[in-house]
Amino acid sequence: MDDELSAAERFFHEQIPLTRAMGLRVVAEDETGFVVEAPVALNSNHLRTGFGGSINAVATLAAYGLLWLELNDTAAHVVVAESSIRFLRPVHETIRAMCLRPSPDELAAFRTQFAAKRKARIALRVKVIEAGETAAEFEGTFVARSQ
Amino acid sequence: MDDELSAAERFFHEQIPLTRAMGLRVVAEDETGFVVEAPVALNSNHLRTGFGGSINAVATLAAYGLLWLELNDTAAHVVVAESSIRFLRPVHETIRAMCLRPSPDELAAFRTQFAAKRKARIALRVKVIEAGETAAEFEGTFVARSQ
Repeated sequence: MDDELSAAERFFHEQIPLTRAMGLRVVAEDETGFVVEAPVALNSNHLRTGFGGSINAVATLAAYGLLWLELNDTAAHVVVAESSIRFLRPVHETIRAMCLRPSPDELAAFRTQFAAKRKARIALRVKVIEAGETAAEFEGTFVARSQ
Repeated sequence: MDDELSAAERFFHEQIPLTRAMGLRVVAEDETGFVVEAPVALNSNHLRTGFGGSINAVATLAAYGLLWLELNDTAAHVVVAESSIRFLRPVHETIRAMCLRPSPDELAAFRTQFAAKRKARIALRVKVIEAGETAAEFEGTFVARSQ
Protein backbone atom coordinates (compact mmCIF):
# COMPACT_ATOMS: atom_id res chain seq x y z
CA MET A 1 0.00 0.00 0.00
CA ASP A 2 1.09 3.53 -0.77
CA ASP A 3 2.78 5.17 2.25
CA GLU A 4 0.33 8.07 2.23
CA LEU A 5 -2.65 5.70 2.30
CA SER A 6 -1.24 3.59 5.11
CA ALA A 7 -0.46 6.79 7.07
CA ALA A 8 -4.07 7.95 6.57
CA GLU A 9 -5.39 4.56 7.72
CA ARG A 10 -3.14 4.64 10.80
CA PHE A 11 -4.32 8.17 11.56
CA PHE A 12 -7.97 7.02 11.45
CA HIS A 13 -7.32 3.96 13.63
CA GLU A 14 -5.37 5.96 16.21
CA GLN A 15 -7.44 9.15 16.32
CA ILE A 16 -10.96 7.76 15.79
CA PRO A 17 -10.92 4.41 17.64
CA LEU A 18 -14.37 3.38 16.39
CA THR A 19 -12.82 2.99 12.91
CA ARG A 20 -10.99 -0.11 14.23
CA ALA A 21 -14.27 -1.73 15.32
CA MET A 22 -15.68 -0.81 11.88
CA GLY A 23 -12.74 -2.47 10.12
CA LEU A 24 -12.12 0.72 8.14
CA ARG A 25 -9.45 0.52 5.44
CA VAL A 26 -8.06 3.24 3.18
CA VAL A 27 -7.89 1.68 -0.26
CA ALA A 28 -7.17 4.27 -2.93
CA GLU A 29 -6.44 7.87 -3.74
CA ASP A 30 -6.10 9.30 -7.21
CA GLU A 31 -7.30 12.21 -9.34
CA THR A 32 -10.89 10.91 -9.10
CA GLY A 33 -11.07 10.85 -5.32
CA PHE A 34 -10.28 9.17 -2.01
CA VAL A 35 -11.70 5.72 -1.25
CA VAL A 36 -12.29 3.93 2.05
CA GLU A 37 -14.01 0.62 2.76
CA ALA A 38 -15.50 -1.29 5.67
CA PRO A 39 -16.98 -4.81 5.66
CA VAL A 40 -20.71 -5.23 6.19
CA ALA A 41 -19.83 -8.14 8.51
CA LEU A 42 -18.65 -5.59 11.13
CA ASN A 43 -21.30 -2.99 10.25
CA SER A 44 -24.48 -4.99 9.81
CA ASN A 45 -28.03 -4.21 10.83
CA HIS A 46 -31.04 -6.36 11.69
CA LEU A 47 -31.42 -7.23 7.96
CA ARG A 48 -27.74 -8.32 7.64
CA THR A 49 -27.07 -5.41 5.29
CA GLY A 50 -25.00 -2.30 6.01
CA PHE A 51 -26.27 -0.25 8.99
CA GLY A 52 -27.22 3.26 7.81
CA GLY A 53 -25.20 4.83 10.62
CA SER A 54 -22.09 2.94 9.48
CA ILE A 55 -22.63 3.85 5.83
CA ASN A 56 -22.88 7.51 6.82
CA ALA A 57 -19.74 7.22 8.99
CA VAL A 58 -17.73 5.57 6.19
CA ALA A 59 -18.82 8.34 3.80
CA THR A 60 -17.83 11.00 6.36
CA LEU A 61 -14.41 9.35 6.75
CA ALA A 62 -13.86 9.33 2.97
CA ALA A 63 -14.39 13.10 2.98
CA TYR A 64 -12.15 13.66 6.05
CA GLY A 65 -9.44 11.58 4.39
CA LEU A 66 -9.51 13.57 1.18
CA LEU A 67 -9.28 16.87 3.06
CA TRP A 68 -6.56 15.68 5.44
CA LEU A 69 -4.36 14.63 2.53
CA GLU A 70 -5.09 17.93 0.75
CA LEU A 71 -4.12 19.89 3.87
CA ASN A 72 -1.26 17.80 5.17
CA ASP A 73 1.21 20.57 4.50
CA THR A 74 -0.77 22.83 6.87
CA ALA A 75 -1.64 22.72 10.58
CA ALA A 76 -5.39 22.33 10.17
CA HIS A 77 -8.19 20.62 12.06
CA VAL A 78 -11.06 19.37 9.93
CA VAL A 79 -14.61 19.00 11.24
CA VAL A 80 -17.96 18.30 9.57
CA ALA A 81 -20.48 21.15 9.86
CA GLU A 82 -23.48 19.53 8.20
CA SER A 83 -24.26 16.61 5.94
CA SER A 84 -27.06 14.81 4.19
CA ILE A 85 -27.36 11.30 2.81
CA ARG A 86 -29.79 9.37 0.61
CA PHE A 87 -29.87 5.59 0.85
CA LEU A 88 -30.77 4.11 -2.54
CA ARG A 89 -30.21 0.37 -2.08
CA PRO A 90 -28.87 -2.01 0.57
CA VAL A 91 -25.13 -2.74 0.83
CA HIS A 92 -24.47 -6.48 1.07
CA GLU A 93 -20.72 -7.13 1.36
CA THR A 94 -18.53 -4.03 1.45
CA ILE A 95 -19.30 -0.40 2.26
CA ARG A 96 -17.04 1.34 -0.27
CA ALA A 97 -17.18 5.15 -0.19
CA MET A 98 -15.42 7.45 -2.65
CA CYS A 99 -15.13 11.15 -1.93
CA LEU A 100 -15.03 12.88 -5.30
CA ARG A 101 -12.10 15.26 -5.65
CA PRO A 102 -13.31 18.87 -5.98
CA SER A 103 -12.23 20.78 -9.07
CA PRO A 104 -8.82 22.50 -9.01
CA ASP A 105 -10.67 25.85 -8.82
CA GLU A 106 -12.69 24.78 -5.77
CA LEU A 107 -9.56 23.47 -4.04
CA ALA A 108 -7.64 26.64 -4.87
CA ALA A 109 -10.45 28.82 -3.46
CA PHE A 110 -10.50 26.67 -0.29
CA ARG A 111 -6.73 27.00 0.17
CA THR A 112 -6.81 30.75 -0.47
CA GLN A 113 -9.61 31.21 2.08
CA PHE A 114 -7.73 29.07 4.61
CA ALA A 115 -4.49 31.03 4.12
CA ALA A 116 -6.30 34.39 4.47
CA LYS A 117 -8.70 33.61 7.35
CA ARG A 118 -7.14 30.52 9.01
CA LYS A 119 -10.57 28.95 8.50
CA ALA A 120 -12.26 27.70 5.34
CA ARG A 121 -15.23 25.58 4.32
CA ILE A 122 -15.79 23.30 1.40
CA ALA A 123 -18.66 21.11 0.15
CA LEU A 124 -17.71 17.51 -0.62
CA ARG A 125 -19.66 14.75 -2.34
CA VAL A 126 -19.28 11.05 -1.58
CA LYS A 127 -20.73 8.06 -3.39
CA VAL A 128 -21.15 4.63 -1.84
CA ILE A 129 -20.98 2.08 -4.62
CA GLU A 130 -21.38 -1.70 -4.69
CA ALA A 131 -21.33 -3.92 -7.77
CA GLY A 132 -21.44 -0.90 -10.06
CA GLU A 133 -24.58 0.56 -8.47
CA THR A 134 -24.80 3.64 -6.26
CA ALA A 135 -26.05 2.52 -2.85
CA ALA A 136 -25.91 5.93 -1.15
CA GLU A 137 -25.17 9.55 -2.00
CA PHE A 138 -23.66 11.81 0.67
CA GLU A 139 -22.96 15.54 0.69
CA GLY A 140 -21.23 17.37 3.49
CA THR A 141 -19.84 20.77 4.36
CA PHE A 142 -16.45 20.49 6.01
CA VAL A 143 -14.59 23.20 7.89
CA ALA A 144 -10.82 23.43 8.29
CA ARG A 145 -9.50 25.55 11.14
CA SER A 146 -5.96 26.54 11.92
CA GLN A 147 -4.59 24.55 14.88
CA MET B 1 -34.41 -0.28 33.81
CA ASP B 2 -37.83 -0.63 32.24
CA ASP B 3 -38.26 -4.03 30.52
CA GLU B 4 -39.12 -2.38 27.21
CA LEU B 5 -35.97 -0.26 27.30
CA SER B 6 -33.70 -3.16 28.19
CA ALA B 7 -35.32 -5.21 25.38
CA ALA B 8 -34.64 -2.36 22.94
CA GLU B 9 -31.02 -2.14 24.11
CA ARG B 10 -30.57 -5.91 23.76
CA PHE B 11 -32.10 -5.74 20.28
CA PHE B 12 -29.57 -3.05 19.24
CA HIS B 13 -26.60 -4.94 20.70
CA GLU B 14 -27.63 -8.22 19.05
CA GLN B 15 -28.81 -6.95 15.68
CA ILE B 16 -26.38 -4.04 15.10
CA PRO B 17 -23.09 -5.25 16.60
CA LEU B 18 -21.34 -1.90 16.14
CA THR B 19 -23.61 -0.51 18.87
CA ARG B 20 -21.65 -2.62 21.39
CA ALA B 21 -18.34 -1.02 20.34
CA MET B 22 -20.09 2.37 20.59
CA GLY B 23 -21.26 1.62 24.13
CA LEU B 24 -24.84 2.47 23.13
CA ARG B 25 -27.40 2.51 25.93
CA VAL B 26 -31.16 3.04 25.82
CA VAL B 27 -31.93 5.40 28.66
CA ALA B 28 -35.49 6.69 28.47
CA GLU B 29 -38.79 6.61 26.69
CA ASP B 30 -41.75 8.79 27.50
CA GLU B 31 -44.33 11.02 25.84
CA THR B 32 -41.55 13.43 24.78
CA GLY B 33 -39.47 10.88 22.93
CA PHE B 34 -36.95 8.04 22.94
CA VAL B 35 -33.44 8.62 24.29
CA VAL B 36 -30.18 6.77 23.67
CA GLU B 37 -26.65 7.60 24.80
CA ALA B 38 -23.07 6.67 23.97
CA PRO B 39 -19.89 7.86 25.72
CA VAL B 40 -17.50 10.12 23.83
CA ALA B 41 -14.68 7.95 25.25
CA LEU B 42 -15.68 5.18 22.81
CA ASN B 43 -16.68 7.57 20.01
CA SER B 44 -13.96 10.21 19.98
CA ASN B 45 -12.26 11.95 17.09
CA HIS B 46 -8.84 13.54 16.66
CA LEU B 47 -9.97 16.48 18.85
CA ARG B 48 -11.17 14.16 21.67
CA THR B 49 -14.76 15.25 21.09
CA GLY B 50 -17.59 13.18 19.61
CA PHE B 51 -16.86 11.87 16.08
CA GLY B 52 -19.48 13.24 13.65
CA GLY B 53 -20.12 9.76 12.24
CA SER B 54 -20.87 8.45 15.74
CA ILE B 55 -23.15 11.38 16.56
CA ASN B 56 -25.10 10.72 13.37
CA ALA B 57 -25.28 6.98 14.16
CA VAL B 58 -26.54 7.62 17.72
CA ALA B 59 -29.21 9.98 16.32
CA THR B 60 -30.23 7.37 13.73
CA LEU B 61 -30.53 4.74 16.49
CA ALA B 62 -32.75 7.02 18.59
CA ALA B 63 -35.13 7.26 15.64
CA TYR B 64 -35.01 3.48 14.94
CA GLY B 65 -35.72 2.83 18.61
CA LEU B 66 -38.76 5.08 18.71
CA LEU B 67 -40.23 3.46 15.59
CA TRP B 68 -39.47 -0.09 16.69
CA LEU B 69 -41.30 0.46 19.98
CA GLU B 70 -44.19 2.11 18.11
CA LEU B 71 -44.42 -0.86 15.73
CA ASN B 72 -43.69 -3.72 18.07
CA ASP B 73 -47.18 -5.10 17.70
CA THR B 74 -46.56 -5.47 13.93
CA ALA B 75 -44.13 -7.47 11.80
CA ALA B 76 -42.25 -4.54 10.33
CA HIS B 77 -38.71 -3.84 9.21
CA VAL B 78 -37.54 -0.26 9.61
CA VAL B 79 -34.89 1.33 7.41
CA VAL B 80 -33.64 4.89 6.96
CA ALA B 81 -34.27 6.35 3.49
CA GLU B 82 -32.53 9.70 3.88
CA SER B 83 -31.27 11.97 6.62
CA SER B 84 -29.55 15.25 7.28
CA ILE B 85 -27.67 16.58 10.27
CA ARG B 86 -26.29 19.92 11.42
CA PHE B 87 -23.45 19.96 13.94
CA LEU B 88 -23.73 23.05 16.15
CA ARG B 89 -21.13 22.48 18.87
CA PRO B 90 -18.73 19.74 20.01
CA VAL B 91 -19.90 16.95 22.33
CA HIS B 92 -17.46 16.46 25.22
CA GLU B 93 -18.68 13.62 27.48
CA THR B 94 -21.86 11.90 26.37
CA ILE B 95 -23.62 11.74 23.02
CA ARG B 96 -27.26 11.87 24.16
CA ALA B 97 -29.84 11.76 21.35
CA MET B 98 -33.58 12.19 21.80
CA CYS B 99 -35.94 11.32 18.98
CA LEU B 100 -38.96 13.57 19.42
CA ARG B 101 -42.24 11.67 19.42
CA PRO B 102 -44.36 12.63 16.40
CA SER B 103 -47.83 13.98 17.09
CA PRO B 104 -50.67 11.46 17.60
CA ASP B 105 -52.03 12.49 14.18
CA GLU B 106 -48.72 11.80 12.44
CA LEU B 107 -48.40 8.42 14.15
CA ALA B 108 -52.01 7.54 13.29
CA ALA B 109 -51.44 8.44 9.62
CA PHE B 110 -48.26 6.31 9.60
CA ARG B 111 -50.08 3.31 11.10
CA THR B 112 -53.01 3.68 8.70
CA GLN B 113 -50.66 3.83 5.71
CA PHE B 114 -48.74 0.79 7.00
CA ALA B 115 -51.94 -1.22 7.52
CA ALA B 116 -53.25 -0.33 4.04
CA LYS B 117 -50.05 -0.65 1.97
CA ARG B 118 -47.77 -2.80 4.17
CA LYS B 119 -45.26 0.05 3.76
CA ALA B 120 -45.21 3.53 5.27
CA ARG B 121 -42.80 6.42 5.72
CA ILE B 122 -42.45 8.98 8.45
CA ALA B 123 -40.16 11.96 9.10
CA LEU B 124 -38.49 11.98 12.52
CA ARG B 125 -36.50 14.67 14.29
CA VAL B 126 -33.69 14.01 16.74
CA LYS B 127 -31.81 16.42 18.98
CA VAL B 128 -28.38 15.75 20.43
CA ILE B 129 -28.12 17.70 23.67
CA GLU B 130 -25.31 18.17 26.18
CA ALA B 131 -25.36 20.43 29.24
CA GLY B 132 -28.63 21.99 28.13
CA GLU B 133 -27.31 23.02 24.71
CA THR B 134 -28.23 21.50 21.36
CA ALA B 135 -25.06 20.01 19.87
CA ALA B 136 -26.65 18.57 16.71
CA GLU B 137 -30.00 18.50 14.95
CA PHE B 138 -30.92 15.46 12.85
CA GLU B 139 -33.88 14.83 10.56
CA GLY B 140 -34.56 11.55 8.82
CA THR B 141 -37.17 9.83 6.71
CA PHE B 142 -37.75 6.28 7.88
CA VAL B 143 -39.59 3.53 6.03
CA ALA B 144 -41.36 0.59 7.64
CA ARG B 145 -42.02 -2.45 5.47
CA SER B 146 -44.03 -5.53 6.22
CA GLN B 147 -41.76 -8.54 6.93
